[in-house]
Amino acid sequence: MNRIITIGREFGSGGREIGKRVAEILQIPYYDNEIVTQISERTKLAEDYVNQFSEYKPITYFPITIGRSFQPIANPAEMQRSAICIEQGKILTELAGKSGCVIVGRCADYVLGAFYPMRLFIYADIDFKIKRCREKVPEHGHMSDKEIKQQIQAIDKSRANYYKFVTGLQWSKKTNYDMCINTTLYPIKDLAYTIAQLYERSWGVD
Amino acid sequence: MNRIITIGREFGSGGREIGKRVAEILQIPYYDNEIVTQISERTKLAEDYVNQFSEYKPITYFPITIGRSFQPIANPAEMQRSAICIEQGKILTELAGKSGCVIVGRCADYVLGAFYPMRLFIYADIDFKIKRCREKVPEHGHMSDKEIKQQIQAIDKSRANYYKFVTGLQWSKKTNYDMCINTTLYPIKDLAYTIAQLYERSWGVD
Repeated sequence: MNRIITIGREFGSGGREIGKRVAEILQIPYYDNEIVTQISERTKLAEDYVNQFSEYKPITYFPITIGRSFQPIANPAEMQRSAICIEQGKILTELAGKSGCVIVGRCADYVLGAFYPMRLFIYADIDFKIKRCREKVPEHGHMSDKEIKQQIQAIDKSRANYYKFVTGLQWSKKTNYDMCINTTLYPIKDLAYTIAQLYERSWGVD
Repeated sequence: MNRIITIGREFGSGGREIGKRVAEILQIPYYDNEIVTQISERTKLAEDYVNQFSEYKPITYFPITIGRSFQPIANPAEMQRSAICIEQGKILTELAGKSGCVIVGRCADYVLGAFYPMRLFIYADIDFKIKRCREKVPEHGHMSDKEIKQQIQAIDKSRANYYKFVTGLQWSKKTNYDMCINTTLYPIKDLAYTIAQLYERSWGVD
């Protein structure tokens, strides 16, 4: 079975960079937004729209009155979201079936459970994340620390909602991962090397 | 400054074994109960008694009625505990000042904050911990899974109380550590090697 590394990450913690570096060291594919693009192509929805659904928006039920009872029923937006989730699961499984790889986000730790992936969660102190966002995200350059913090928290909240929706579990809770790594004090290149070492030691080179 | 590795750990997760192996790979000292022995010698209290105070018992206040108000005042047991905490802090600082080392438990991650230690937390799934306890702890051999689980939970609860008492922080919360490692699926020897690699890469050999 192919050996998969899945990476959950707080926004601004450097999880994507770790993922890319690990994939580079191990010479295995790295998947992130490429997956969204594929889903978009398959479901014929605009890429931005898919992104919005799969990461950033909480689930909304519209209660409809039937007689005296309130009953939540599926709305078109929710149905689209479900379609995206199903398609995403299929694509993740296909990618994992092709070769060992690194997958960032997308609840891959849960969806690919049958592959026994190495499940990583990357996090950092809030001040570090604010600084990193200011440096790495062009549109954050002119925002105040407070504004960046609010954006980080909003994105992480949406990731948690999405994770809960797909898995029924709590995003970022350490029991759902094999290793949780705080990037605040350690160089990302060293952490990436460490992860790659463990991958190779535990499984041998793919 | 000497490079210190501190290890917090759930009971039964293999944190002690990881600590010993890391120290062995890096050829630096490993400290655990030796610290308790030293505290015992300095404070002239029996070792078992010290152990009980520093790990397993919650803090008890005896409210004393003064006029109409209730006021919690220090009792002898609490004063002894405070003395042990102060002495423990001194001993940890002395040990960290001597050379790079691995320290398991004793809130060393917090007490030695000035050394910027590599702060690890080791955890595992409950079934794994029960199995490990049954194999490693002689007195657990004849206990039921339920009894072992209760003991694990009781010990971890006391550790959390003690950590809260000394640091004011939440034990096992991942923001208090640099890396949290789940031993359920990875061989401890591989994890120990990985930690040692990160230690050497980040700081060079001590």
